[in-house]
Amino acid sequence: MGAGFSADDRLRVTYRLLCVEGETPRDKAEDIAYEQTVELPPSCVGEAITEAVVGRIESVEPGPARSWTAVISYSPEWIGDDAAQLANVMFGNISLKQGIVITDVEWPTTLLERFGGPAHGVRGLRKMAGVEPERPLLCAALKPVGLSAEELAELCYRFADGGIDLIKDDHGLTDQPSAPFDERVRRCREAVAKANDSTGGNTLYFPNVTGPASRLMDRVETARGAGCRGVLVSPLLAGLDSLQRLAREDDLAVLAHPALSGAFFGASHGILPEILLGDLFRILGADGVIYPNVGGRFPFDDRICRAINDRLRRDLGKILPAFPVPGGGIDVKIVPHWIAQYGADTMLLIGGSLYGQDDLTSATRRLVDQIKLATS
Amino acid sequence: MGAGFSADDRLRVTYRLLCVEGETPRDKAEDIAYEQTVELPPSCVGEAITEAVVGRIESVEPGPARSWTAVISYSPEWIGDDAAQLANVMFGNISLKQGIVITDVEWPTTLLERFGGPAHGVRGLRKMAGVEPERPLLCAALKPVGLSAEELAELCYRFADGGIDLIKDDHGLTDQPSAPFDERVRRCREAVAKANDSTGGNTLYFPNVTGPASRLMDRVETARGAGCRGVLVSPLLAGLDSLQRLAREDDLAVLAHPALSGAFFGASHGILPEILLGDLFRILGADGVIYPNVGGRFPFDDRICRAINDRLRRDLGKILPAFPVPGGGIDVKIVPHWIAQYGADTMLLIGGSLYGQDDLTSATRRLVDQIKLATS
Repeated sequence: MGAGFSADDRLRVTYRLLCVEGETPRDKAEDIAYEQTVELPPSCVGEAITEAVVGRIESVEPGPARSWTAVISYSPEWIGDDAAQLANVMFGNISLKQGIVITDVEWPTTLLERFGGPAHGVRGLRKMAGVEPERPLLCAALKPVGLSAEELAELCYRFADGGIDLIKDDHGLTDQPSAPFDERVRRCREAVAKANDSTGGNTLYFPNVTGPASRLMDRVETARGAGCRGVLVSPLLAGLDSLQRLAREDDLAVLAHPALSGAFFGASHGILPEILLGDLFRILGADGVIYPNVGGRFPFDDRICRAINDRLRRDLGKILPAFPVPGGGIDVKIVPHWIAQYGADTMLLIGGSLYGQDDLTSATRRLVDQIKLATS
Repeated sequence: MGAGFSADDRLRVTYRLLCVEGETPRDKAEDIAYEQTVELPPSCVGEAITEAVVGRIESVEPGPARSWTAVISYSPEWIGDDAAQLANVMFGNISLKQGIVITDVEWPTTLLERFGGPAHGVRGLRKMAGVEPERPLLCAALKPVGLSAEELAELCYRFADGGIDLIKDDHGLTDQPSAPFDERVRRCREAVAKANDSTGGNTLYFPNVTGPASRLMDRVETARGAGCRGVLVSPLLAGLDSLQRLAREDDLAVLAHPALSGAFFGASHGILPEILLGDLFRILGADGVIYPNVGGRFPFDDRICRAINDRLRRDLGKILPAFPVPGGGIDVKIVPHWIAQYGADTMLLIGGSLYGQDDLTSATRRLVDQIKLATS
């Protein structure tokens, strides 16, 4: 076993443990190490399997607020290049337990190489959008569900005419009869191309390809055929490996949407948002990751948002940095504030706040001008 | 819009709401109704879209322990036959909020027909296993990860020789070099067939097909080619629609594993286990659903287990009943207790408790005899 693996090149997961009465932190860590690998009591596992397969307890130390911090490492051999199995080893069965939060992960080179990260990253997506490094990208959300393909295309035209960098489908737009996928993508992309021709701009349109895995590649082909340069996917709805599949189509960029991910963000049990959205989504292939910004419609705080930004942009082997895409109630009025807070390598997602204004094209243009001014 | 839909045939989701200071239950319900559909403030949504798309608040009433109970209904038109979009409408964006638990769902006929449920259900799986309605089925878990295909096949032989009804792969067995999928499935199935020939029995072997969506159908073909009559999948690892894809292969039965599902079981935010494992997994196509039994290694209590059993077996349009498969630390010693508690239409999953005994074949045989005695 272990041919080709460095013994030290292990997946090191930091768990914050809350122990109930009668539970010791050491026992709880040992329970995780067995539960996540062999799923048998220690007495039923031979020495060779224990050494090769069972999670290794690297440390157990007192943490903040009566918690404990345990680091458990796993061999990448049992994960391979399988995103489902990666999530399974990190949190599969213990999701059903209590008082366990993944607070940090150290990624082995083996897994970074196998999963490979985004094909474009921050620099590639900038190049695609034709936006210089000095300013953030601006993203608009195409909605609501229920509009016809023609109506959605008209909105696309106005956003593009106003000079937005990127339009992404609302993640609830799938293949509904009101705006079937193929028709929507064709019409929206045409509208954007028409506006680009008229403005000399370079607005991108990324359709949502979330849906049945068996239809994913058909939707990708439709998007590509229509001239789209990227797509949107909700990995927890479509399956984590959808990110990998899309990243392999390396002419297309991939934006990840956080739908359903909030289930993991329990205060005393789950996975920290910066690990799930910041590390995992990036490593699996997202060029940009949408998350609910502080002060919007969702309860993410400043610490979480900054931690996600850091994880998406930090050095991580050969994995390219990805764009943080804060959204979920960013008001156009305080866009300069977010630029100052988050820096230029950010993609600001502006949704309802634009729709709330009378003339979408002018509102978009004012916003784009504001961004350019704030960063000039 | 709505052609072919009965206006009353809506997905009715009951949410238990916990309001923080300054939040009214009515506002919170309205926020959900918009967030889960149009993702725009009410002022930005026209009348036609509001009527056709926005969730309809059916009721908001005081609930237990200072909570509120809101029923919100959604048109199936925006869901189609798309499992990802079903999960998205029920809990996608609001997963990122707080104080919202899905406690009940009333399924519209339209969605029950589209998703279709299990192909075999309790009666079909009984027939496949050749077990009369008078007794529960017995399932063993094949483990641990790290054994060779040959060693796993040897364990299969012993379980089958002892007369177990069904052997399922551990859900951590994927396609590891120690026991590559194809070799494992072929050897294990051969070993089971050999034991069946010698005992005249009918033990089934269900390999785990969880993994990349792009390899799912290849694994299904391998399993079918080896003579397997069913498979195991972890829907939250592989993508929810994996259940649908597998249920469509209607010569094969499907067991669902709950890995990662525990993320949804927060006390004040999430989805009740009986809804996710009992209703959703069944409707998407599971013939049997594994869950962690009360008193084992996991914190499910008696109420949850009974509620899951009820949901899996209750009348639900034309959807077949599915087997509850309690596991996760069921001790062979108290198997008769669980038969009395849960009734005959149960599949008992016995894992470590069998491995803890010296002679696997004899231990299995004693267990099978015990079951037959307890139900004769």
